[in-house]
Amino acid sequence: MDEIDIAWASEPDLDDPVFVEGLPGVGHVGKLVAEHVVEEADSELVARVHSEHFPPQVTVDDDSVAELAGAEVHAVDTAGRDLLVLSGNHQAQDNVGHYRVSNAFLDVAEEFGATELYALGGVPTGELVDEHDVIGAVSDPALKDRLADAGVEFRSEEPAGGIVGSSGLLLGLGGRRGFDAACLMGETSGYLVDPKAAKAVLAVLEDLLGFDVDEEALDDRADEMEEVVSRLREMEEGPSPGDEDLRYIG
Amino acid sequence: MDEIDIAWASEPDLDDPVFVEGLPGVGHVGKLVAEHVVEEADSELVARVHSEHFPPQVTVDDDSVAELAGAEVHAVDTAGRDLLVLSGNHQAQDNVGHYRVSNAFLDVAEEFGATELYALGGVPTGELVDEHDVIGAVSDPALKDRLADAGVEFRSEEPAGGIVGSSGLLLGLGGRRGFDAACLMGETSGYLVDPKAAKAVLAVLEDLLGFDVDEEALDDRADEMEEVVSRLREMEEGPSPGDEDLRYIG
Amino acid sequence: MDEIDIAWASEPDLDDPVFVEGLPGVGHVGKLVAEHVVEEADSELVARVHSEHFPPQVTVDDDSVAELAGAEVHAVDTAGRDLLVLSGNHQAQDNVGHYRVSNAFLDVAEEFGATELYALGGVPTGELVDEHDVIGAVSDPALKDRLADAGVEFRSEEPAGGIVGSSGLLLGLGGRRGFDAACLMGETSGYLVDPKAAKAVLAVLEDLLGFDVDEEALDDRADEMEEVVSRLREMEEGPSPGDEDLRYIG
Amino acid sequence: MDEIDIAWASEPDLDDPVFVEGLPGVGHVGKLVAEHVVEEADSELVARVHSEHFPPQVTVDDDSVAELAGAEVHAVDTAGRDLLVLSGNHQAQDNVGHYRVSNAFLDVAEEFGATELYALGGVPTGELVDEHDVIGAVSDPALKDRLADAGVEFRSEEPAGGIVGSSGLLLGLGGRRGFDAACLMGETSGYLVDPKAAKAVLAVLEDLLGFDVDEEALDDRADEMEEVVSRLREMEEGPSPGDEDLRYIG
Repeated sequence: MDEIDIAWASEPDLDDPVFVEGLPGVGHVGKLVAEHVVEEADSELVARVHSEHFPPQVTVDDDSVAELAGAEVHAVDTAGRDLLVLSGNHQAQDNVGHYRVSNAFLDVAEEFGATELYALGGVPTGELVDEHDVIGAVSDPALKDRLADAGVEFRSEEPAGGIVGSSGLLLGLGGRRGFDAACLMGETSGYLVDPKAAKAVLAVLEDLLGFDVDEEALDDRADEMEEVVSRLREMEEGPSPGDEDLRYIG
Repeated sequence: MDEIDIAWASEPDLDDPVFVEGLPGVGHVGKLVAEHVVEEADSELVARVHSEHFPPQVTVDDDSVAELAGAEVHAVDTAGRDLLVLSGNHQAQDNVGHYRVSNAFLDVAEEFGATELYALGGVPTGELVDEHDVIGAVSDPALKDRLADAGVEFRSEEPAGGIVGSSGLLLGLGGRRGFDAACLMGETSGYLVDPKAAKAVLAVLEDLLGFDVDEEALDDRADEMEEVVSRLREMEEGPSPGDEDLRYIG
Repeated sequence: MDEIDIAWASEPDLDDPVFVEGLPGVGHVGKLVAEHVVEEADSELVARVHSEHFPPQVTVDDDSVAELAGAEVHAVDTAGRDLLVLSGNHQAQDNVGHYRVSNAFLDVAEEFGATELYALGGVPTGELVDEHDVIGAVSDPALKDRLADAGVEFRSEEPAGGIVGSSGLLLGLGGRRGFDAACLMGETSGYLVDPKAAKAVLAVLEDLLGFDVDEEALDDRADEMEEVVSRLREMEEGPSPGDEDLRYIG
Repeated sequence: MDEIDIAWASEPDLDDPVFVEGLPGVGHVGKLVAEHVVEEADSELVARVHSEHFPPQVTVDDDSVAELAGAEVHAVDTAGRDLLVLSGNHQAQDNVGHYRVSNAFLDVAEEFGATELYALGGVPTGELVDEHDVIGAVSDPALKDRLADAGVEFRSEEPAGGIVGSSGLLLGLGGRRGFDAACLMGETSGYLVDPKAAKAVLAVLEDLLGFDVDEEALDDRADEMEEVVSRLREMEEGPSPGDEDLRYIG
């Protein structure tokens, strides 16, 4: 195996596709969106990317078949723009690997003539949030108007700590290669997998690219997490005033 | 020394050998099986594999002679299939090294025309277990029937965290190279060296490959560990009711 | 992108320039000085240095535009010597990277014919200090007299732990390449960003190179930090005797 | 700078020299011996070895001159065998670097035709020891008799954890290159710099190689440490019985 190994699975004919990244990260927001789009829309595996910089492991599927750690690129045919969606269970494990793997992802995007790129992720707020704004960062200020029209917020020098990992590098390296690149980050606590933040990011993406996927699966996961969150809130707040009254009377 | 250095010790004439890996890992299950087979059966050192990715150290043998960190491949002549058994005291220490060293192991296997591969290990249950099931994962679903007949259990998406390290990579990389590869994992607590889990894995391997080795040495080690385990259990449970009665009487 | 990627932004005509480094480090002393000089004097971006050895991230500016992690070299035109000032938000993240990135910085310096080099930083004292001496280390003892005249102190075998990171390597590698290299280290607690230590280092640099920049911005930041420090001191010392009297009377 | 950079300082004419390594390690035993021999005997700097795998730093000498992290090889002319002594303040910081730097050291040894090698170090006992046995490990069992005559003890499979770092690799890699290599390890607590363990190792080395250096400096350091140790022992044991009597009387 080479340092980075791209195993091609199909050669779809795509019309000016948009590259969309959703690897694991804060609140798994990007990963949730990417996987949801691949599952709900008409998609086809294009390539698996393996690398010595991914963790040295396999995952085991429901048929007990092992799959080497890697990332996947699917072609997605939507009512709007054609998509190339990058998803997977891993990011590179070391600095140098992060750069090289991200450059390989961009090579795949260029292979299909993509010139537009969205890196999806979450931005941690440190507390549970009810409204999930979507924050943006761009490779070129000229991209901001269209994104703002789709509901993206731009805040000076945010996120303060920068954007780390694949999303950051696809934006940074992609911009340097001439991509029109943006990072769309759903606000999320940072503590939990957050399907609601994913829905907010998905809504922006659908608006931008003119497609629409069924959201039931994401709603179901959001309901599950909602329950987890409300139980956490109860635990945080302790017994309610009502409980105290009862004890007082007792 | 090269990044990976294979020092050949002999060139045995093997008939369609099966490659069996047992490096250190969970409960040292794989290592126990591999070393037991090498010791009990008719075996011959074929090669030592050294690498910059192994720890920078030597081990010292009973004659005070130093041996550079590495792994060993033995040819084992059994009543059934010929074996190439990989054992040793170390795994690679870094991600990239894991991939490269595992690929070197596969090169050795291919050198002898092996096309079948078993990676042996343990799967942690988190608690002391009396029955040691052997869980399987495969490179190809067609391999499952024969393994199931030999007593291997297949459980959807297990182990949940995937298979990490040499065993995982030999399965993942081996499968991609065309090996019929399987990982056989004995259930074990994960806290202790587990010769009983090793016996369970060995039994499956013997059934699959048609050989039979004396198990006394493994039984002895199992007895030793059994004693350790029972002492641990006593410590966990505290004094028994009987002890308390005695004290009460006193 | 190559392992190290130098993106040239301009090709200024410099007269025997002095290379000045101020990357993040103890008390951010070097970074404060370098950025202050670039902002206050007549400066022009010469090159951005990117590398796989920098963190895998982008920073986001006030216009929400992403900038790939890197370091910047500015040409600065002063009343005295021409300067090439290296500043940025990151150092290399690994050993090997530190050496390679530092050598690339020296390549840039040599590109413009620089033969003199000042690495700026802080030296931690472990306690809050009022007077900020500037300690020096050199590539060649012949450099010490001129530096001592400008107020630099030389102390045998100090800093005891050596000089780590970019400043250390530019001094060590630069000296081996034939640069007249010195490290100027402002004494600082090591706990806080320290604009006063930066002022002390800047004063030495101005004296050595015959230039003078407005210090108001640095004074403002020093005032802010002064307030932080005085609040920290209050917290350390607890309520003053006066406070206790008042409570007693009450 | 290359990955490993050997800066030659002189080309002494040596007669069948013995290579002796003493880099920092357990109790700094090896380092103490190597530096003591270089200081007390008639020695000359042969080469400095620098590497990207050493820490990214300089040390500062008593004249405030910076020295890039590295190791030094001195030629030492003794009444007995000629020596090539390797000493320094650092070991490589990463696995791969450990292997490559150790191989570079062996290149230097071979450059001068050395075929015999002693790696000096300490072996931790975990408690303060009064007698400092010297434990040995060898590349070839034929070397043991002569070492045993010089007072070296050989214990089956000790040290149990193997020999880690430069000493281990020089023994392991050196043996594979055909050196007659031995590791001499002075027993030491492992908690403190131990000049007495160094004296024990030095005595063995002098006996083996037929030389004799003044030991006053090492004795002085041993006395200093002895005082530290006795103070530590007092603190461990608490007030003596005598103290209690006094209090009782009081």
